[in-house]
Order: sequence, then C-alpha cells, then structure tokens
Amino acid sequence: MIVVVCLNPALDITHHVPSVDWTGVNRPTAVYARPGGKGTNVARSLRPFGIPILLMGLAGGTTGNAVAAALRRLAVPTAFTETAGETRRTFTVVDSAGSAALFNEPGPEVSAAEFARFRLAYREAIAVASAVVLSGSLPQGLPRTAYAELIAAATESGVPVVLDTSGEALGAGVAAGPAIVKPNLDELRALSGRCLRTADDGLDCAAVHTAARELQAAGAEAVVVSLGSDGLLAVTREGCWHARPSAMVRGNATGAGDAVTAALVHGLVLGRPWDDRLRHAVALSAASVTAPVAGEFSQADYLGGLDTVTVLRKEAC
Amino acid sequence: MIVVVCLNPALDITHHVPSVDWTGVNRPTAVYARPGGKGTNVARSLRPFGIPILLMGLAGGTTGNAVAAALRRLAVPTAFTETAGETRRTFTVVDSAGSAALFNEPGPEVSAAEFARFRLAYREAIAVASAVVLSGSLPQGLPRTAYAELIAAATESGVPVVLDTSGEALGAGVAAGPAIVKPNLDELRALSGRCLRTADDGLDCAAVHTAARELQAAGAEAVVVSLGSDGLLAVTREGCWHARPSAMVRGNATGAGDAVTAALVHGLVLGRPWDDRLRHAVALSAASVTAPVAGEFSQADYLGGLDTVTVLRKEAC
Repeated sequence: MIVVVCLNPALDITHHVPSVDWTGVNRPTAVYARPGGKGTNVARSLRPFGIPILLMGLAGGTTGNAVAAALRRLAVPTAFTETAGETRRTFTVVDSAGSAALFNEPGPEVSAAEFARFRLAYREAIAVASAVVLSGSLPQGLPRTAYAELIAAATESGVPVVLDTSGEALGAGVAAGPAIVKPNLDELRALSGRCLRTADDGLDCAAVHTAARELQAAGAEAVVVSLGSDGLLAVTREGCWHARPSAMVRGNATGAGDAVTAALVHGLVLGRPWDDRLRHAVALSAASVTAPVAGEFSQADYLGGLDTVTVLRKEAC
Repeated sequence: MIVVVCLNPALDITHHVPSVDWTGVNRPTAVYARPGGKGTNVARSLRPFGIPILLMGLAGGTTGNAVAAALRRLAVPTAFTETAGETRRTFTVVDSAGSAALFNEPGPEVSAAEFARFRLAYREAIAVASAVVLSGSLPQGLPRTAYAELIAAATESGVPVVLDTSGEALGAGVAAGPAIVKPNLDELRALSGRCLRTADDGLDCAAVHTAARELQAAGAEAVVVSLGSDGLLAVTREGCWHARPSAMVRGNATGAGDAVTAALVHGLVLGRPWDDRLRHAVALSAASVTAPVAGEFSQADYLGGLDTVTVLRKEAC
C-alpha cells in the first residue's frame, strides 16, 4: 500500500462566468467543486494503476466532509484525522477568454493534539505501507519540522518516502533523509538561493545539477527536479538523468508536478530502474497536462507518450 | 409555532480581499460562510423573540449539510427535505473600498418526488402551526404554482400565510389567498407593469396604492409594500397605512426586507393591530440594516427605534 499524506486538503470550487462583472451580480454557467490539494492529486493519479493506496491527512467541518465525500465518489480510499478548524476552499472564477482569478482561503490552524492524533493513525498505516508520499504545504499551526518527523517515523520502519513541498518544510524534510525529493525549479531556486537560469533566461543545467547535489548532500537519497516543458532532471545514487518530453504540451499545468510524484512513487514500489521511472513520470505528467482536470489523465495519452520521452544519462554530473 | 419555508437556501461565502487581483492569486484576509436565502434570514430574525419556529425547505449534498450545521450553531430549528442536487453557494468578494462582486450558483433542480416529500413534511408541520412564511425564489424544477399549493394547504387548515417572493411565483401565490403578501417596489412594479415613480424619480404613492389594491383584488388579504428608506405602505381590510422610519438608515440592506416579513408574521400571531405591526416591522428592518450581517439585529437598536417610527393612517386609499 502507498500512503499519500495531504495535511492541507482543499475543496476547489470553479465558476465559469462568460463575461465577469467585477462590481455586480454574476450567474455562473458552470460550477465545479472538486477535492484539491497536491496530495489529493497524487492519490487520484495513482488510483488508475490499481495498486492499494490510502490518502491520509487532516480535514474538518463541512468542507472537510465535502472533500472526503468527493474522494469517495472518485473511489479514493481516505483516512482523515478530524480537525476543529474548517478545511479550506479555493475559489476560481474563469471567464470565456480563459482569464482566471483565484481566491485561496488560509485553511485551519491545526493544534498539537490534532497532529498527535494524525501521527498515531499514520504510524499504524506505515506499518503496512510499501512507500509514503508527503505532498503540499503544511497547514498553519504545525512546526516546519512536521514532515521531517513523518519521514523519520517511516524511515525507522524501513518505508521509503517521496517528499514534494517547498520552503522551510522542504529544507527540514530533506535533512530527515527521504528516498526522493521532488522540487520544481522555483522551489529549488528558493531553497538553494542559486540563480538557475542562464543570462538569456534559458535553463542553467549545471546550476540545477549543483543545487540538486546540495539537496542530496543535505540528506535526500535522490533529487528529481521538475523543469516544466524541459522535463525532469534526476540526481540519484545510481547516476544522473535528464528526461524530456518530445514536444511542449499545451493544457492545464495544475497537477502536472503531482503526476510526476505519483509516477515516481509507483516506479519506486515496482522497483523500476531510474531511467524507466523518469520515462513514466514525464509521460504521466504530459498526459495530465492534456486532461482538463488536475489528478486525471487518459491512459491512451499516457501509454502512447512513453515512447516519445527521451531519457539521457548525464555522465558528467 | 411559526413555519418558515426556504425552498432554495444557500451557503453565503464572503471573502474579504483588501486589493483584488482579478487575473491572479488572492489570499483573503477574512472568510465568512453563513446560511443564506431569504427564509433563513426570516427565521434568524424571528429567533430572538423566543417564539417556537421551524425552518423547513429543501437541501442537498455537503453544502446542504453545511447550511443545516450553521443553522444548528445559530440555534435555529430546521427540518430540511433532502434533495439529490447540491444546495447552492453564493460567493462574494469584497475589497477594502467596499466594492463587491457576487457569484450566485444556480442551485439544484428539484424533482417532483422531492417536492412531494417536502409537502408531506409541510402538511405535518402546519397541523401544529400558527402561521406560515413562504419566502424567496423557487428552485429550478418546481412549477410556478408551488407556493400557491402550499398556501392552499395552509389555508385549508386555517393557518395564515405571509408570502414574500417575486415574478410568476408571486402572481400565482397571490391568487391562492395569502393573509399578507410583501413585495418590494421592484417586485410590485414587475408584477403590476405600472411605473411607481413620479416624473422627478420620487415615489408615486398613488400608483403604489393602486398596484397594491390590484394584488388585494387578485386574492391577498393584505398587501405590505416595502419602500426602502420610505418605509412600508400597507393596504389591508382594516384600512391603509404608511409607516416611515425617522431617518435614512445606513448599513447593510441585505435582509432588511426579511426583517419586515419576520415582524409582520410575529405581529400576526400576536394579534397586534396593523399600525403596531407596521411600527415593529419598520423598527426591526432599520435595526437589521444597522447590523453587519443579514438576519441579525441589536435589541437596543430595535426597541430604541420603535418610538421614532411614524405610522399614518391613509384615509384616502
């Protein structure tokens, strides 16, 4: 079983309003309410592979119930620890030109007692887990070492962890020794303090390598940097690779990084060699961009895309 | 017991965003989620008077649960008939200048079977009711005669009905003989097809009288027209009155008309004479405008305002 942790889930509400009156009354022509949060997208991306998964996290109030109910309808098994605070909503208004305004609620402040209850449930789950994914931001009230604690608990039980977060939670988490850490370029730049672009705004691969090596030296067994349309750059104990899609994929980039995380943990539990893991991760990410909703993809796009990914071993890194 | 019917309740979500980026990501500084819909406001306005009330209606999905849970926290007794469709949300973004954008979801389509289940519950409730309030718009899927049916059922049982709705539901409802109908000026204008303003955009009292008399001739025992800052104009079998606040009240006008409806039904069950009912209705409405949230008011504002209301009997009408 893969345990996916989403400590700060959301209900993502989208209103389609052909022409928005920003000072008056609007009647949306289409309304969607979907479970959100990065861990939720990871779990949804894993579900079609038919391996046992469990989405764990913190959820509260009627919005928490709405998230859990929507996940049940999507056949994603969940075990949320209840919080007194109400789970957050995100609200997006999209007009017919595709312009979007987002309103992200701050989410609940989680108490120490609530996080302790979560940790108890988490320890029970990792006892029967083959891997753990920790994904997304930490809710208010939790220490920046919260993910580090969860990594230490899994590692003690011999369960590998894939970590996808940012800022201080990423820095503290890396030190706890996750099997894979998956920053994107912005997250790696913020953590390393390095400029990762060349003078003409291209990707500075050498600088990305250096920053990834630093994360490895700080504790991560492997570092996979998601580079958007430039694919993935991996620094591992078995070597370094750069995996690229055949062409720029247009569509909805929300959840593309979560598809990478899903494919990486899937490859980890299957024991796939690194080049194969990265090929699947790039193909699943591209298929996810083509799908209209984060966390979804078409099997045909995914399987059809596998052969088009270029995976190059970087001997120099 | 006063039965208040709210067939199309809502969860009213408000985000306060000091300076809105209409093409980017916003982080609201304050978030409110409150039960909404006109009947909900009427029930909340009645609750402080300590008389037994029951808020009935149709609610579904986790948004319906959120509305019911919020009403429980406000100590408003509810009996909602469950719908398969999800209860609607309204979403308001307010900036620091007080400018507001509203996004009103359409709400669920109600099936004939769901409305039949509601009518069963309603018939049980009116058997022990002293009055009924029917308030707000009809949800999709119901015939325009839905309120007329509910009025006929109550009238058969000798229970008087106060009706506050608009358009075809108002027209059909009036014909069923409610004890009081409470249109505002816009609703009366739309139904009567009359211009209710003078050439210099003032209130044309004579035209309002004529339009109200027409509603009375069409079936309503009494017609109370809410005129905003001009107060209330009542056409009843006991005579006609114009009740006015002492001064223009500034504040949140949402729910002001619902406070009028609440005071009118309260006066009806207490057997207050019409001039007294109207005095209370104007004072409660003004106190509601002063309160920041629809459905709330300060007792001090309400009781202190009673003596400042002018109620004039209109012998001419």
